[in-house]
Amino acid sequence: MNIEQLAANTIRALSIDAVQKANSGHPGAPMGMADMAVVLWSKFLRVDPKNPTWENRDRFVLSNGHASMLLYSILHLTGFPISIEDIENFRQWGSPTPGHPERDPSLGIETTTGPLGQGFATGVGMAIAEAKLNERFGSDLVDHRTFGFVSDGDIMEGIASEAASLAGHLGLGKLIYLYDDNDITLVGPKSWSYNEDTTGRFAAYGWQTLHVDGHDQPALAEAIEAALADKDRPSLISCKTHIGFGSPHKQDSASAHGSPLGEEEVALTKERLGWEYEPFHVPADVYEFFTGALDDRRQEASEWERNLEMKLAADKNLAKAWHKHFNATPISIAVPEYDEGAKAATRAISGAVINAIADDRPDLVGGSADLASSNNTLIKSSGDFTANDRSGRNIRFGIREHAMGAIVNGINVHGGMRAFGGTFLTFSDYMRGAIRLGALMGAPSIWVFTHDSIFLGEDGPTHQSVEHVAALRAIPNLWVVRPANAAEVAGAWEVALNRVDGPTAFSLSRQGLPVGGAGPVPVDKGAYVVRDGSDVVLVATGSEVATALDAADILEGNGKSARVVSMPCREAFEIQDDAYKSSVLGDGIPRVSVEAGITFGWGDIIGSGGLAIGLDRFGASAPASVLAEKFGFTPEQVAARVSEWLG
Amino acid sequence: MNIEQLAANTIRALSIDAVQKANSGHPGAPMGMADMAVVLWSKFLRVDPKNPTWENRDRFVLSNGHASMLLYSILHLTGFPISIEDIENFRQWGSPTPGHPERDPSLGIETTTGPLGQGFATGVGMAIAEAKLNERFGSDLVDHRTFGFVSDGDIMEGIASEAASLAGHLGLGKLIYLYDDNDITLVGPKSWSYNEDTTGRFAAYGWQTLHVDGHDQPALAEAIEAALADKDRPSLISCKTHIGFGSPHKQDSASAHGSPLGEEEVALTKERLGWEYEPFHVPADVYEFFTGALDDRRQEASEWERNLEMKLAADKNLAKAWHKHFNATPISIAVPEYDEGAKAATRAISGAVINAIADDRPDLVGGSADLASSNNTLIKSSGDFTANDRSGRNIRFGIREHAMGAIVNGINVHGGMRAFGGTFLTFSDYMRGAIRLGALMGAPSIWVFTHDSIFLGEDGPTHQSVEHVAALRAIPNLWVVRPANAAEVAGAWEVALNRVDGPTAFSLSRQGLPVGGAGPVPVDKGAYVVRDGSDVVLVATGSEVATALDAADILEGNGKSARVVSMPCREAFEIQDDAYKSSVLGDGIPRVSVEAGITFGWGDIIGSGGLAIGLDRFGASAPASVLAEKFGFTPEQVAARVSEWLG
Repeated sequence: MNIEQLAANTIRALSIDAVQKANSGHPGAPMGMADMAVVLWSKFLRVDPKNPTWENRDRFVLSNGHASMLLYSILHLTGFPISIEDIENFRQWGSPTPGHPERDPSLGIETTTGPLGQGFATGVGMAIAEAKLNERFGSDLVDHRTFGFVSDGDIMEGIASEAASLAGHLGLGKLIYLYDDNDITLVGPKSWSYNEDTTGRFAAYGWQTLHVDGHDQPALAEAIEAALADKDRPSLISCKTHIGFGSPHKQDSASAHGSPLGEEEVALTKERLGWEYEPFHVPADVYEFFTGALDDRRQEASEWERNLEMKLAADKNLAKAWHKHFNATPISIAVPEYDEGAKAATRAISGAVINAIADDRPDLVGGSADLASSNNTLIKSSGDFTANDRSGRNIRFGIREHAMGAIVNGINVHGGMRAFGGTFLTFSDYMRGAIRLGALMGAPSIWVFTHDSIFLGEDGPTHQSVEHVAALRAIPNLWVVRPANAAEVAGAWEVALNRVDGPTAFSLSRQGLPVGGAGPVPVDKGAYVVRDGSDVVLVATGSEVATALDAADILEGNGKSARVVSMPCREAFEIQDDAYKSSVLGDGIPRVSVEAGITFGWGDIIGSGGLAIGLDRFGASAPASVLAEKFGFTPEQVAARVSEWLG
Repeated sequence: MNIEQLAANTIRALSIDAVQKANSGHPGAPMGMADMAVVLWSKFLRVDPKNPTWENRDRFVLSNGHASMLLYSILHLTGFPISIEDIENFRQWGSPTPGHPERDPSLGIETTTGPLGQGFATGVGMAIAEAKLNERFGSDLVDHRTFGFVSDGDIMEGIASEAASLAGHLGLGKLIYLYDDNDITLVGPKSWSYNEDTTGRFAAYGWQTLHVDGHDQPALAEAIEAALADKDRPSLISCKTHIGFGSPHKQDSASAHGSPLGEEEVALTKERLGWEYEPFHVPADVYEFFTGALDDRRQEASEWERNLEMKLAADKNLAKAWHKHFNATPISIAVPEYDEGAKAATRAISGAVINAIADDRPDLVGGSADLASSNNTLIKSSGDFTANDRSGRNIRFGIREHAMGAIVNGINVHGGMRAFGGTFLTFSDYMRGAIRLGALMGAPSIWVFTHDSIFLGEDGPTHQSVEHVAALRAIPNLWVVRPANAAEVAGAWEVALNRVDGPTAFSLSRQGLPVGGAGPVPVDKGAYVVRDGSDVVLVATGSEVATALDAADILEGNGKSARVVSMPCREAFEIQDDAYKSSVLGDGIPRVSVEAGITFGWGDIIGSGGLAIGLDRFGASAPASVLAEKFGFTPEQVAARVSEWLG
């Protein structure tokens, strides 16, 4: 057995040992992909285990995250800070080796994967970030590849289809995916549910496609060389592999997919592989092999670092630009100016903010899922990011919301670029898998969701969000901002851009709203008093703040003093101290929530004794003013309900 | 101009008039697809406007629902109960002509569309339902086609890719989609975001693909004939069309897509089309043309009805079988038997229920997105539904959650079959677009979501639902049932199957739970008292009911009398009367919620003064017992928190 085969068997042995010890996990895929990993890491992947976060490293994505032991094994073997003890603690509390890889670039884990298709699409985002930075700083400073391992599951998921289509369209030539084509899914043969001409499909997307025996290491190396040689198309290398490679009874069977092999089969497999060591043993030769193999790339990293330092020292403008990309400082955003008493849709104000800050934030890129003109996401001073022009900052995601979600995450976890994505709020449903994964891994993605609530009007209930603000608030670590006016939109963008450890979603109006005052407001505190009063407090968000203010005037006329609180961001409010919360909501004043959406969750703020004014049903197709009337959202109706309730 | 062209121009004129009057809508697509509609409806589509819901009608899906005026126009012209007045009230409150088509088979609207890709995948479900019923009842009683119009947006959406792949795999030869290939998306040229070889991609999926000039009516008819001739493959007919056909300044431009043409351009367009009538006028010839054209199909429908009646009268078994499929009566489900004190996962109990009722409910079909063995969705007495065997009741959806969602909706809105779909609860995110649309259109889909909460354990936070139960509860008209034991699982299935106007989602445990008693419990009332007590009430769901019961025992030992309420279905509880609610929750007793998920929304039940025990963060990878300890869900920890809180 040559050293490369021994290295592959080491990955297999570590993987089956760890899964067996945890009594849980997926041994089959690491066993099948071990040769692919050995070739990629020993010969191609430009990484430095001692400097895992250098900016120009190649990115690697394990899209089939259930094969996590493959990644932990190769990271350990190549000298990243994952120890044998960590591997022994696979899937245990507090270990860096959870069931599915969780993003931690300092360990060599670029993105969180597991939910299938996400890694595939996230990698497309990384390749876009690279193309942008390459154009900006030149190949001397940024010129790296994005590699990924993808599985049948990834290939079947719609999000991957969308991302593959866009990657082909954009000609992302430095994107190279190795497809673990093992003919087995979790429940059985792939043929139970899939009989496509996969490479034919990818060719239709505009990819270079290659076929190779996934256990023939020299052939794999050749295929990767061919992929690298095509600069204009992403490449899919279809690697024919055997899931559970080496297991006498489970190879090529679904039983190798998602359960430990069992002690007996582990022993038989090791015998078949000629593996004579104790559990969790790594032959010294294998460590040496990888150390030697990676030597040139460690050196490349050092040279790159020296070169970067030199260049930044020599060129102040370059240093400033680099800093703006890789170390963006907290931003303060001026409130866009409008005539007093004017009306503007918060989506339009958001567009104005984007364009106001675009020059000062060259790292900012983004786009929409075919709704740029509606979402107001266009950076007007810039063109489109295309296959032929990488300078454009506007990304045309096409009608591919889910891929947009993961691609924006990918740009943001790449580093050096900050990305936003837009669509109608209702279609946040289409990309929820990506929104959640971004929140879980702390990707600071920005979601520009517009046309919120029933007040988008005539398009009707298919397009009217009623539950989406609540449903987004439900996702941990996602901040949801529903601004009411120009100052709150500026604050929303400030909050979003200054978050570095998690995503922010905006809920913006289609319809015009009173633009409000010119001074800044504390969106970062989540809620504040916009009108004082002592008999009742109306807590409103977004378009309903103006309604609540008008209702308060009517109540005033009826001798009731109503406070109005604007609560653009519940998550920000929840982390304020009790004193601040009391100062805003008051103590012992009856509370009413006013939001044109489901009332679910407002009990947490107003109490079970409070009055929740909302809409606990789907909307309807009609002009917005008619809907306001029919669904009880005119100031008169709100005031009347509050009056009646107060008694 | 021949009558067919006049008919197409009538559709164009009605569409632009209606959009203009509403001052809102999408004129371009109806103008472009008018010829396609005339050919399909005048020559092929087997429908009877006077008997719109006859079971063996062809199904038609307008997947690009924004082209709704095309559908309303053709329905009006062919004699469905949509009047000219309805068309004049396009997009107005209470009209049957909302912005996007809303399912109402009595009007000829088979499914709600608008969110792109949904119709495409829903049609695949209809074709599956047809194939099942055809196998069961023979071509004499069920033998129809499913036609659809689909757009660039549909083609780009991942859900359509997934559905197309499965349709090809399953050889759904009676599925025929006409692709409105007009090179324009909402924001601009399609080439901004898409340059695939579309038919090459569909060929890779296993579809027959055809190309035709979408304005050449005889060529369209020929292409449809060719599609019908291929019995083994679904067909995609790529129809090259001009969006905004006839508009001098807006044809072939995005400006025709989503806004009214404007009075002036409407006039110029009518001039160009040679259209000399008043707004909303339909030439008598055109009515006559369609009446004549549909005559044979009206006759077919009548003959079919007579034949059905005769057959059912002659064959009691057939009549009974037909009735079981098309008029399922309310079901009562026995609690599966377990040894007292045993433990079983609610997912396993659900599997037992499915198999217990399968014989009595021959209409029931379903499957999982590659997790059948984990979701326990297999009907063991039956095989798989495949291209070669339509008798199987198990559908292998593959790793295609979103398509599964819409396909299950499609089966359920088709009639005659009742379908469920399963995956891990966390991946409900991937299919949320379809879940929502099913709820909106009242499709009685059943979602078997398993591996709920952090207690799926080692797979970690990527797979652990913490917010999903809350996020599903947020969707109007979706009932969410999180059962605690065998009786509640039986009740959950009863509730789900007896709902006819909306979907139900289950949240089922991976881990074993005490099976509980053998008697039925009132899941249909949403909540009930499982242990009485007077000092505090613990409201729990699913796996936390057993925890709450154990905690109550501990509290009892400490001199506190704790009531435990199981609340498997919040939506069912909310519609109970106040007396029942009080009888369950008690009045003036402090309330505590116990659910291993986010606390968001529990304030609505326990009040702002209540104690919500939950988990407001993502989970972690570790064995379930460790997670219970770390996150405070052991009975001892729950009892201690309640004690401390009660003071």
